[in-house]
Amino acid sequence: MRAEIVSVGDELLKGQRVNTNAAFISTALSGIGVPVGRVIACADLEDEMVSVMAESLQRADIVLVTGGLGPTRDDRTKQAVQKLLGRGTGLNQKAFDNLAERVKKHGLEMSSSLREQAMVIEGSEVIANTRGSAAGMIIECGERFHHHSLVLMPGVPSEMRAMMELTVIPHFAALSGSCLRHTPIKTVGIGESRLAELLVDVEDRLPVGTTLAYLPHAAGVNLMISTFGLEREKVESDNRTVVQAIVERADTFIYATREVTLEETIGEMLFERGMTIATAESCTGGLVASRLTDVPGSSAYFLQGFVVYSNEAKHNTIGVPEETLITFGAVSEEVARAMATGTLEKSGADIAVSTTGIAGPAGGSAEKPVGTLCLAIALKGAPYAISSTFVMAGDREQNKLRFSEAVLRELWQWLRGSAA
Amino acid sequence: MRAEIVSVGDELLKGQRVNTNAAFISTALSGIGVPVGRVIACADLEDEMVSVMAESLQRADIVLVTGGLGPTRDDRTKQAVQKLLGRGTGLNQKAFDNLAERVKKHGLEMSSSLREQAMVIEGSEVIANTRGSAAGMIIECGERFHHHSLVLMPGVPSEMRAMMELTVIPHFAALSGSCLRHTPIKTVGIGESRLAELLVDVEDRLPVGTTLAYLPHAAGVNLMISTFGLEREKVESDNRTVVQAIVERADTFIYATREVTLEETIGEMLFERGMTIATAESCTGGLVASRLTDVPGSSAYFLQGFVVYSNEAKHNTIGVPEETLITFGAVSEEVARAMATGTLEKSGADIAVSTTGIAGPAGGSAEKPVGTLCLAIALKGAPYAISSTFVMAGDREQNKLRFSEAVLRELWQWLRGSAA
Repeated sequence: MRAEIVSVGDELLKGQRVNTNAAFISTALSGIGVPVGRVIACADLEDEMVSVMAESLQRADIVLVTGGLGPTRDDRTKQAVQKLLGRGTGLNQKAFDNLAERVKKHGLEMSSSLREQAMVIEGSEVIANTRGSAAGMIIECGERFHHHSLVLMPGVPSEMRAMMELTVIPHFAALSGSCLRHTPIKTVGIGESRLAELLVDVEDRLPVGTTLAYLPHAAGVNLMISTFGLEREKVESDNRTVVQAIVERADTFIYATREVTLEETIGEMLFERGMTIATAESCTGGLVASRLTDVPGSSAYFLQGFVVYSNEAKHNTIGVPEETLITFGAVSEEVARAMATGTLEKSGADIAVSTTGIAGPAGGSAEKPVGTLCLAIALKGAPYAISSTFVMAGDREQNKLRFSEAVLRELWQWLRGSAA
Repeated sequence: MRAEIVSVGDELLKGQRVNTNAAFISTALSGIGVPVGRVIACADLEDEMVSVMAESLQRADIVLVTGGLGPTRDDRTKQAVQKLLGRGTGLNQKAFDNLAERVKKHGLEMSSSLREQAMVIEGSEVIANTRGSAAGMIIECGERFHHHSLVLMPGVPSEMRAMMELTVIPHFAALSGSCLRHTPIKTVGIGESRLAELLVDVEDRLPVGTTLAYLPHAAGVNLMISTFGLEREKVESDNRTVVQAIVERADTFIYATREVTLEETIGEMLFERGMTIATAESCTGGLVASRLTDVPGSSAYFLQGFVVYSNEAKHNTIGVPEETLITFGAVSEEVARAMATGTLEKSGADIAVSTTGIAGPAGGSAEKPVGTLCLAIALKGAPYAISSTFVMAGDREQNKLRFSEAVLRELWQWLRGSAA
């Protein structure tokens, strides 16, 4: 069984609205093993809708249409379906009762344009709207369209979502009988092309029905391994085999094989070990602290952070010796280490991380170009802080993000290494 | 001239990524008076791409394709175009030089898969990639496709956006012979529906050719006033008239009528007055400092920040009295004021801002629910800090963002009020 999604609405074509409905529907359908072949956004013109639906119904077993079921003049979906299938409409009593109740609740009068929302295409199965007024429909489209199905839903996200969850997904899950398995692989510290090189032989030997997708983001790349088939056991084992093969080849870069962020992973490790952390940031300007505290419950291990932009702040607040600042410059591993050890002392935390660097666009030199990051990690009881230097190529915001990613990566690697 | 957008990538069909690229491209094209007829998301399979592009090129003058230009094997767009048009590829020297520079900067070796990103379709006009490695292309598709144009761009949003702004939009704007004026109106502290109420009469009387778009984002809404026409003078004056009418009605919420962020606006005000700032954050976890330091040159006025999550950190680091913490609780205006005045003293800055609140999901109570924010602003020489309390309704990340927006808004309003 294969699906296509048709999203009706001029606002999608003018860029006034991002098509989040299509993403929701795709996710829900993948969950029951129904792959989506195409997503088509089109204008709310009758003829355009007729031709888009006709094309989609030739290719796909299920065509899900959102939008154009409301009471205003630019809502033309039902007219288009009548034209496409040559069928009439009739009042659905249940839908009308729901509508009447809502109209009353909002203190309105029932009008003919409102009443139109309870009219459904002949021969359709009505999808109750628990969140709004317009009735949804599942329509078997007859021989001309190979008995494929048309699903009509409102464009309002909350109404559509409730219809998907309560009616559409259960309906097609019962029909499909196929099964699907997605596994995300979350990586850090490796780019798309280098990762692809590591995985050449895995990609060459992907089992039929399994795909490997690269999902690059601002600071790295994640993978998604998807397997689709009819036998649950084979789907599960094919998926597992590919995931294992990837983990074997790229282990040092993989922090999770589930939907979790790097900061959540670090948070879990700190929490499990009962360790606390503090931060000292220059070039990242608070972003490392902000990311660590994006995690619910982070107050259990995150004690405090210092954003020390000026040399004075570095000296006065966390005790970086003036001599170190003068001798090595603010952007140096020596200063990074002094920031980390000073923060350890001030905060009483078990771990302190620090950043000092040049996010740009100004402030670079031949020796220390824009994009230079010095970072350090200090540990309670350890004789000295560990430090590293990296150079990144990005604009200010990209650099800040990549700097923060580098610190979290080093921290994660240290936590992982120290677990053994 | 009419366009269609083809978004290539399995992640779009699996719901793993929302198609924000299509919304961006649509907005940019409507800006130059080129309507988008359809947006089609399809799989990265060669045959599927060939048929989607062939169909779109029959209907539309310009078909913009994003995705599938990267170095990995699921990047098949160029192969599909070769098949569609029966053309070969050749190395583009400029694209190769750009690529070689990036490869070197990242300390990588040039490989054949990387090199592939500088190969372009025969007879194409190359679109320089200022943010990444893969070259873009504008291709005149010959008689079979009515001399319609194919535009190939990477799927990475920052790369695609830069290509659109620097090359694609100017290219097609020149062809369309029309003229266009966009003015952004940046607001803070007002929601979409309330703003729409203020602007009802402006919207009713928009001149022909002028559109008003609401661009909501996570912490508020911006406006874009676009005027399109054939005579430059009329376009400019229509646009100016609408912008002025909006500024008259919503002045207190508008911080700029140009592309600038709230933190940049605040930075400019601080810089002009020679004032310095410091931050003390609990619930925002460093996000306020991070936003302030997103601005290039912010080191001129941003001195330092404290992220004080625990009560101990609030007391030990910035001197919030233990009694205040016990009597009023950590989430209180009293503590916010003590944080701000303590930070003023510790940092020596002219202004200090502070946040303490409950980002959630846990930690709320009937009296202080999740979403509660107390903030304060302290000024050197002023007898006391000013403070406020807000309650927001969002998840943890939304709350953090809205909290930070509230602090910046209050700071901006204070700076604006004190200028007179």
